[in-house]
Amino acid sequence: MNAIWNQCSKELKAALQNLNLAGKPAELYEPIAYFLSLGGKRVRPMLCLISNQLFGGELPKAMPSALGLEIFHNFTLVHDDIMDQAPLRRGHVTVHEKWNQDIAILSGDVMFVKAYEQITQSEPEKLPELLKLFNQTAIQVCEGQQMDMNFEASSEVSLQDYLQMIELKTAVLLAAALKLGAITANANQKDADLIYEFGRNIGIAFQIQDDYLDAYADPEKFGKQVGGDILQNKKTYLLLSAFEKSDATQKAQLEALLSGNLKGEEKIGAFIELFNQLNVPQLAQGAMQTYFDTGMQALNKIQEVKPEAKKGLVDLAEVLMGREV
Amino acid sequence: MNAIWNQCSKELKAALQNLNLAGKPAELYEPIAYFLSLGGKRVRPMLCLISNQLFGGELPKAMPSALGLEIFHNFTLVHDDIMDQAPLRRGHVTVHEKWNQDIAILSGDVMFVKAYEQITQSEPEKLPELLKLFNQTAIQVCEGQQMDMNFEASSEVSLQDYLQMIELKTAVLLAAALKLGAITANANQKDADLIYEFGRNIGIAFQIQDDYLDAYADPEKFGKQVGGDILQNKKTYLLLSAFEKSDATQKAQLEALLSGNLKGEEKIGAFIELFNQLNVPQLAQGAMQTYFDTGMQALNKIQEVKPEAKKGLVDLAEVLMGREV
Repeated sequence: MNAIWNQCSKELKAALQNLNLAGKPAELYEPIAYFLSLGGKRVRPMLCLISNQLFGGELPKAMPSALGLEIFHNFTLVHDDIMDQAPLRRGHVTVHEKWNQDIAILSGDVMFVKAYEQITQSEPEKLPELLKLFNQTAIQVCEGQQMDMNFEASSEVSLQDYLQMIELKTAVLLAAALKLGAITANANQKDADLIYEFGRNIGIAFQIQDDYLDAYADPEKFGKQVGGDILQNKKTYLLLSAFEKSDATQKAQLEALLSGNLKGEEKIGAFIELFNQLNVPQLAQGAMQTYFDTGMQALNKIQEVKPEAKKGLVDLAEVLMGREV
Repeated sequence: MNAIWNQCSKELKAALQNLNLAGKPAELYEPIAYFLSLGGKRVRPMLCLISNQLFGGELPKAMPSALGLEIFHNFTLVHDDIMDQAPLRRGHVTVHEKWNQDIAILSGDVMFVKAYEQITQSEPEKLPELLKLFNQTAIQVCEGQQMDMNFEASSEVSLQDYLQMIELKTAVLLAAALKLGAITANANQKDADLIYEFGRNIGIAFQIQDDYLDAYADPEKFGKQVGGDILQNKKTYLLLSAFEKSDATQKAQLEALLSGNLKGEEKIGAFIELFNQLNVPQLAQGAMQTYFDTGMQALNKIQEVKPEAKKGLVDLAEVLMGREV
């Protein structure tokens, strides 16, 4: 697995460096080069390339999809940052802050076309299938972002709504990355669907874990402030589970904490006490494990990948979940 | 020609009505259905379908490109309206005003994917060629919009810059519409390129005429206020020609008028007097005619269209130019 991983990583890095993103007017192209240079873990293109390799494909045939995925993901971040009025992304000033909002909208639009330009360079006979999945996924990601924005203003978000939102906003793009890689490797339809299901479930598990760690991570190992979501009253899997499990008194306590005056560690402590009382950490871990297991079951049904390669995907899932392998 | 025109118009109307643009969350899809229902002349899809017919193609094979062009064009308007802070479009409230800016950004993004969804339904063997032209054109339209925004803030816009801007922002999409139609009709490469050149030149001529009419139209026949561009200090072909042709004294007069206190008819009258003195109307009409003639020359070189069909394209050019046929 390490050999495949390193090979894909090396090829991706070279391909990203060879991307020609210069153009005129400069106001349109400088933000694109800037934003793509901020890095990130390149998870989506890596999933695409590794999937291609595990299905015995040729790496260059997956590269257009891999680059398209990375540019598309960055496009969504540029536009999301406008909507979220975010000042920083990956520790750097966002496009709408560094330039202005109009430029962020328009250079985002150009990135979107650049993503399609990449996909268009795929093998012609695969193009309709790749595009169909890419289009569908792009729309789902937008739907997820809209749901996320709706949730901020809504007091009636169910756990089910939330799970649908994280599936659309995050999980389907990871799933599509794996499936695009499989298609470029001529995987059969059933296997391609199974690796999609693997990615979708692991993606949801990953997002629930993200919520869990925000409140329950070891502060020594966690990169950011533990309890950040709590301080922002963010509707996470934890908060929404708490609402679903609470009786009238506990609901009132939650409401009081959300609208109350507690700050910092005090607020975090009060929420965690209530979460613990409602078994929220166990619920979150249980849900996470269920999605993880469902993903693994899909993986186990894949036919045309050798067992040692399958082990590679398990490693990948563990890496995605932030577990050591 | 009338028979082809009516047939294309009928089929396009039916196809637009059959578009399924419903979806959830409603906040994302209602603006799309709303905006597309505002109408407009459907010039781009009509050009695509008519071109397909003139090259002896089958109409259904051009319909995905036609619909993709119309949805793409509307997407650009939704995003442009945000950047221009426009309250109205086609006499109705713009998306960012009726809903909000975040929704206008995101539902615009979804429209963009919907445009690609249409193109993706083209004949597979034509898909790479259609997509390549569509991608290139989409990027040029964004470049044109960025140039247009840059011009507003710049005091150093040359006539040449301006011509490049209108070519990118307006003309290439008309040209691409014609070429996409030709490709779906199996036109040979040379003819497809020629009809693109025809569209590009007619498109530039059309835009110069638009500027000309804003100042020199017969108020009885003109749909909007004559002189609107002048009142807004808009950098049109007329104003930029005036700057190019003026000596130091006349330049100072232009600058004084731009920054001065004259209002309404008085301001319009003063500009028109200066324009006339500098031969600006003759210059604009000359440029318009040159682009029109260059377009016609490209048209005359097309091989595989019958003379009577070519007459149809000439009619189309005249219609585009707002002349009676």
